[in-house]
Amino acid sequence: MSNISFEAPRGMRDFYPEDMVWRNRIFDAWRTAAEHFGFQNYDACVVESLELLQRKSGEEVSEQIYAFEDKSGRKLALRPEMTPTLARMVAAKQSRLPFPIKWYATAQCFRYERMTRGRKREHYQLNMDIIGSQDVLCEAEILGAAVYAMRTMGMPDEAWRIHVSSRALLGELLAASGIPEAQHPAVFIALDKRGKISDEEIAALLRAEGLDEGAIEKTFTLLGVNSLDEAAALAGENSPAIANLRDLFATAAQMGYADILMFDIAVIRGLSYYTGIVFEAFDAQRKFRAIFGGGRYDSLLALVGGQPTPAVGMGFGDVVVGEVLREVLGDAAPVQRSGYCIGYMTDAERPAAIALAARLRAENERVDLSLLAQKPKHFFGKAGNSAAQFAVYLGPDDVASGVAQVKDLQTREITKIQL
Amino acid sequence: MSNISFEAPRGMRDFYPEDMVWRNRIFDAWRTAAEHFGFQNYDACVVESLELLQRKSGEEVSEQIYAFEDKSGRKLALRPEMTPTLARMVAAKQSRLPFPIKWYATAQCFRYERMTRGRKREHYQLNMDIIGSQDVLCEAEILGAAVYAMRTMGMPDEAWRIHVSSRALLGELLAASGIPEAQHPAVFIALDKRGKISDEEIAALLRAEGLDEGAIEKTFTLLGVNSLDEAAALAGENSPAIANLRDLFATAAQMGYADILMFDIAVIRGLSYYTGIVFEAFDAQRKFRAIFGGGRYDSLLALVGGQPTPAVGMGFGDVVVGEVLREVLGDAAPVQRSGYCIGYMTDAERPAAIALAARLRAENERVDLSLLAQKPKHFFGKAGNSAAQFAVYLGPDDVASGVAQVKDLQTREITKIQL
Repeated sequence: MSNISFEAPRGMRDFYPEDMVWRNRIFDAWRTAAEHFGFQNYDACVVESLELLQRKSGEEVSEQIYAFEDKSGRKLALRPEMTPTLARMVAAKQSRLPFPIKWYATAQCFRYERMTRGRKREHYQLNMDIIGSQDVLCEAEILGAAVYAMRTMGMPDEAWRIHVSSRALLGELLAASGIPEAQHPAVFIALDKRGKISDEEIAALLRAEGLDEGAIEKTFTLLGVNSLDEAAALAGENSPAIANLRDLFATAAQMGYADILMFDIAVIRGLSYYTGIVFEAFDAQRKFRAIFGGGRYDSLLALVGGQPTPAVGMGFGDVVVGEVLREVLGDAAPVQRSGYCIGYMTDAERPAAIALAARLRAENERVDLSLLAQKPKHFFGKAGNSAAQFAVYLGPDDVASGVAQVKDLQTREITKIQL
Repeated sequence: MSNISFEAPRGMRDFYPEDMVWRNRIFDAWRTAAEHFGFQNYDACVVESLELLQRKSGEEVSEQIYAFEDKSGRKLALRPEMTPTLARMVAAKQSRLPFPIKWYATAQCFRYERMTRGRKREHYQLNMDIIGSQDVLCEAEILGAAVYAMRTMGMPDEAWRIHVSSRALLGELLAASGIPEAQHPAVFIALDKRGKISDEEIAALLRAEGLDEGAIEKTFTLLGVNSLDEAAALAGENSPAIANLRDLFATAAQMGYADILMFDIAVIRGLSYYTGIVFEAFDAQRKFRAIFGGGRYDSLLALVGGQPTPAVGMGFGDVVVGEVLREVLGDAAPVQRSGYCIGYMTDAERPAAIALAARLRAENERVDLSLLAQKPKHFFGKAGNSAAQFAVYLGPDDVASGVAQVKDLQTREITKIQL
């Protein structure tokens, strides 16, 4: 019986009520934003078939999968991301879905990895995807919904930026530098490691892919491009990738969030299935990991065995945004007070307290009814620490007179209520 | 690449948007009800330490646990229920929590078992618990919140009943029948199998526990008791268990749900840690499994190594209530229409459509903006099938005049909107 640990398993989080205030602030903003932009909710079990995950994921992810067998020997795993599941669900009904579809989910995902700041072994992730359209309006709508979510959480616009680039643009520029297309995926993966490993190590990776020293130098030069105009000068104004990016910035301006977007050619996104625009959001100081990221991945459905279908998606985790929110808003973010706390001095006043609670609840008010008789000091101390807006405390005189005092816990104003 | 199944793993559920309408109806009602009654939200990871689960759970549950090891050999499992996790979290902070506490969680739980109606290998469960009070007001508050949840989902009062009994009462009655207290847990477990195995098999189980034929007969006679008054006649009006049950029924009357409660001595609840009042809710026709169930379990915290603390809890799964809701309300439960669908005839009208969408969203309206130019017939067909309340379709004339028509999709009323 002794020596049981009361801790959660390593890397897994417990959420006490004070933690849930923050989590619900994030989850509620996600849901509000996704629905505000016309996304439909879907979900699937966190347990997936291991085969599906391995087919879709790169080698790096496969090593980090929590895999196990059920009692009949089925190979299962806790999903590391939602996208393979989404692709499976869409492929299963591909002939019957009214494309383009806009779907969102708040999905728990697991990765077995070393724990550093902003990384646990599980996290929750808002996934928003638009499947069945090549139009850049898809990217604009997804980013618009993400901006709406950040604003709903209380994050000021100036505290963060969305860094935007394009796999297609980088592909055009690499091709113009004489690097053959077959090598592009390996180049993307190498460049994505920038900041995590040294430039010399990246150069060694590129060399291993068969790039000569001239091509390697040109690749690093491309990463020095600082604006869309500089990129256009290299790619040419007829570049489809440049036109696509200019469309996105113009639509973002119409939608009211152009100031948050910035072109950043260094945004690569590690996973190799992206095909067009890619994006990552960071706090303005770049103190934290990416807040959210995503892009266009037109080949995904084909990858799991479905019909080729254009798609854009994003993942928005709860851990980093929680850290950024606490940094920007401070730990004492405002509490939304609502409803009533009701207390009573002795058991003689309890029936009146129960009756009042029943009446207020029937009027659609939130009521926290004391479970025991309390001294006024104890009752008002607990009520002040709660999220209630009003406190009502019943003593013998209140019950005898049929009228009680209602205290507004914010303004300290006192009003009366009939019992 | 071929032969990947698009199905979810066996026993696990996919939720397409049309399924999420039902799931969110249930989840939202749970959250509304719990918060309406002053419960605070908590959560923990679905992955738990296997040791914790085995300590707490009976043998039957242990065999059904999805267990696995992580890469450093830690023994983990997908939780089969939330209660051990709750006990662990409360024990970890036992000296600092402001008891009594009222906590709720919506927790996914896993059991590896044969799949029958109302049983999958995973389900979601609302857990509401009050910890730190022996008062029957705890039971009344938890049942009141459950009733509020059912009403919020649209379930009529006459379509279901909460069956209430008391482990303490059954203990008193068994003791009065001469069955020693040490045998009571085994008797509870045997009686709980009633309806699942034959009465002869139950009698055999009781015989194996050392009950003689007279005691077995008396045990079955007790199950024939049909009312609280009959039980009181056997137990005596001084019985603490009878007084406790009468208090619960009186408080339920004050709270406005006495008509839903009924005394039913046959409610046992399988798990052996209950110590007082126990309850289970069923549809009025008893076509389905229990909708929710719970009771008082004053020994739970001590069981995981914490300080002994009185507690009442309930679990309310999403599967059975979903089946009952569909049966009672029909598949075509009313859709809550809100917000706008916006469409356009050609790409020339698209900027005006984007601008209108941005304006309405800034006014806090939900907007599903078409991702492509559509013929009116296609647009209005899709809008009619959506959950939007209004549809706006922009053609060249609308953009030229700066005024568009807004169609109410429910009433078919037409109004105008400035572009």
